[in-house]
Amino acid sequence: MSSIKMFEKPLGMRDTFPQIFEKVEAVRQTGKDFLCKRGYEFIKTPAVEYFDTVGKASAIADTHLFKLVDSQGNTLVLRPDMTTPIARVATSKLLKEMIPQRLAYFASVFRAQEAEGGRPAEFDQMGIELIGDQSVFADAEVIVTAMELLKHLQLVAFKVTIGHAGILNCILQDYTESIEQQATLRTLLVQRNYVGFEEAVESFNLPKAKADALLQFIEEAMDVKDIRDIEQYVRKNDALVYMQQLAQLLEMADLADYVTFDFTLSSHMSYYTGMLFEIFALGSGFPLGNGGRYDGLLEVFGSKAGATGFSIRVDRLLETLNGQSEGQKEATVVLFEEEQFEAALLQVNTLRGAGKFATLQLRSSLVDEEAFLAHFTEVVVVGQEEVGGE
Amino acid sequence: MSSIKMFEKPLGMRDTFPQIFEKVEAVRQTGKDFLCKRGYEFIKTPAVEYFDTVGKASAIADTHLFKLVDSQGNTLVLRPDMTTPIARVATSKLLKEMIPQRLAYFASVFRAQEAEGGRPAEFDQMGIELIGDQSVFADAEVIVTAMELLKHLQLVAFKVTIGHAGILNCILQDYTESIEQQATLRTLLVQRNYVGFEEAVESFNLPKAKADALLQFIEEAMDVKDIRDIEQYVRKNDALVYMQQLAQLLEMADLADYVTFDFTLSSHMSYYTGMLFEIFALGSGFPLGNGGRYDGLLEVFGSKAGATGFSIRVDRLLETLNGQSEGQKEATVVLFEEEQFEAALLQVNTLRGAGKFATLQLRSSLVDEEAFLAHFTEVVVVGQEEVGGE
Repeated sequence: MSSIKMFEKPLGMRDTFPQIFEKVEAVRQTGKDFLCKRGYEFIKTPAVEYFDTVGKASAIADTHLFKLVDSQGNTLVLRPDMTTPIARVATSKLLKEMIPQRLAYFASVFRAQEAEGGRPAEFDQMGIELIGDQSVFADAEVIVTAMELLKHLQLVAFKVTIGHAGILNCILQDYTESIEQQATLRTLLVQRNYVGFEEAVESFNLPKAKADALLQFIEEAMDVKDIRDIEQYVRKNDALVYMQQLAQLLEMADLADYVTFDFTLSSHMSYYTGMLFEIFALGSGFPLGNGGRYDGLLEVFGSKAGATGFSIRVDRLLETLNGQSEGQKEATVVLFEEEQFEAALLQVNTLRGAGKFATLQLRSSLVDEEAFLAHFTEVVVVGQEEVGGE
Repeated sequence: MSSIKMFEKPLGMRDTFPQIFEKVEAVRQTGKDFLCKRGYEFIKTPAVEYFDTVGKASAIADTHLFKLVDSQGNTLVLRPDMTTPIARVATSKLLKEMIPQRLAYFASVFRAQEAEGGRPAEFDQMGIELIGDQSVFADAEVIVTAMELLKHLQLVAFKVTIGHAGILNCILQDYTESIEQQATLRTLLVQRNYVGFEEAVESFNLPKAKADALLQFIEEAMDVKDIRDIEQYVRKNDALVYMQQLAQLLEMADLADYVTFDFTLSSHMSYYTGMLFEIFALGSGFPLGNGGRYDGLLEVFGSKAGATGFSIRVDRLLETLNGQSEGQKEATVVLFEEEQFEAALLQVNTLRGAGKFATLQLRSSLVDEEAFLAHFTEVVVVGQEEVGGE
């Protein structure tokens, strides 16, 4: 431990410097305003929760949880997602009225990392949860809101891939011969390891008809533009009817062009029980966001309400938007000598009154005046005519 | 541990519901805008830091630190303040240029609590740090900015109490006979335990002149409107000259009416080395905020730069502002039946296009329609003439 340098941060922890901060802030403000106008209310939950409640109910692997112990000996966790804390809140407080709750958040979540240079251990998520509405219209609302939010944030080149846990379950149950086989195949699909999937199916020594049906499903169900194209590969079931309805609603919302169906989609967020989806910027391998229906999660907290929602990874969204950077911000500095403080105050207050960004700075405190002034577009020296900035 | 109910939160941890969230948000936005216009740039630091760096350098007692251990066996802490992480950032990255840095933050900090119903274990602070300027003008800027920020946030009835660690040190050194005596008295002053102070002075059996000088100082130095009134009780030293200059600058900024000097002021934030201050709403016993000069802290991180700053407790500020609450927000809900989705979408988009807050809701998903509608000021039922809301 003595090897830690004073300026070091824990693995995966990052500072956010002013330029990036302002970009995050712009997304936060625009997104918040957009979601509020659609009836979503923002809430905040604590960074620290009990392991026995939110920690266990969340779908994040134990090795990625930041754990600590309180003075009573209880194990605590840093929240690894926002869906689980909001399920806790909705159950304990907000759902007594039994009316649909539209909740939104912009918050950092925590995932412990074990290697330097890897994924961030703390990152911002923006998202919504629609709780207390079991209908397909609630799912449509969530997907439409995610897509229109991204468009509103000036992201144009993206697609949404939608699957359904029920359809995938149906296929895996029909064409495998044990729960272990199903679990193996599901894990491979979460990893998008299609080669591994094929090898696993072969290794199971299934009857040829089953093995063929599985492999054909994987091939055909992965990239479906028109939902009717999948009907021949799946026996008719409630999930399929549901997805047909959902497809129709998205068409009415004029967003079908952004949508592909992928019935091989399986999430590491194990609480998704119905429709689930991922959002990709074109050309990127990492999802910008994801969502789905998680009716089971609220039951853990003692409520039978249905729930659906999405979350966006703000860091990945910013990387995608990064082409659009703006020029240097207009900023004035007023330089003064010790005896000019009163006059300098008057001058800087006039500038600020006119809406300008204006910094007040004692000139003799500057070790490197040139380096300091390079940060401003206008320099005012008290007692002199105005001089130009950079 | 089995006694934890599913909806419980760790000691001192709180949820922030929509109404309070929006009040916090208003303070955050107004404050951020105000500070940016004065040349302060917002940054964010991670919630988790190494104990050996930020944990040890912070002035928060060990028992109030949330500690955890990472996979390498290093002890981590949840940041207990923002001044220490910003000192780390300024030293490691920003200060290479040797120019004054004006940094700002709005962030939650963490203090472990041991009893239910006590102080919050996570709360928001908004503040600034002016790093790399040793002059009294930098201290004046920080105090002026704090006061004008509060006025800008519509707080009028407040006062600022300013002291100086150097003047108090001088008194304690001159009139006690050991470092232990000084430490005892300092702790009593941090607790504002003036009865205890008097008892301690008596128990020291000091020469009568010293004891009298100490007790007289405490009486006279606690509430000084005009800095000249204190000159007879303190021998002339650099700190006194400094405070005279500062008082003059605050007069020029037309803020002297808000200011009282209190040279008995001592902070549990042990890193304050010079001027320090506390902000109180009138009639409240808890400080809304505090600040001061902490030239020593940056040295811990390997830099010799001077630094000064303040932070405001957002929760206490909101309690103080709480008189001014606004009425119900205008919000419309569009209710539709299953077959009306397309028409409902058209209608809600028209409302949103006109800038309205508009929620879309499938009518048949409502268990208690009346309770739901009570949250809206306007109700539109698709296919009907507009009906009035609450």
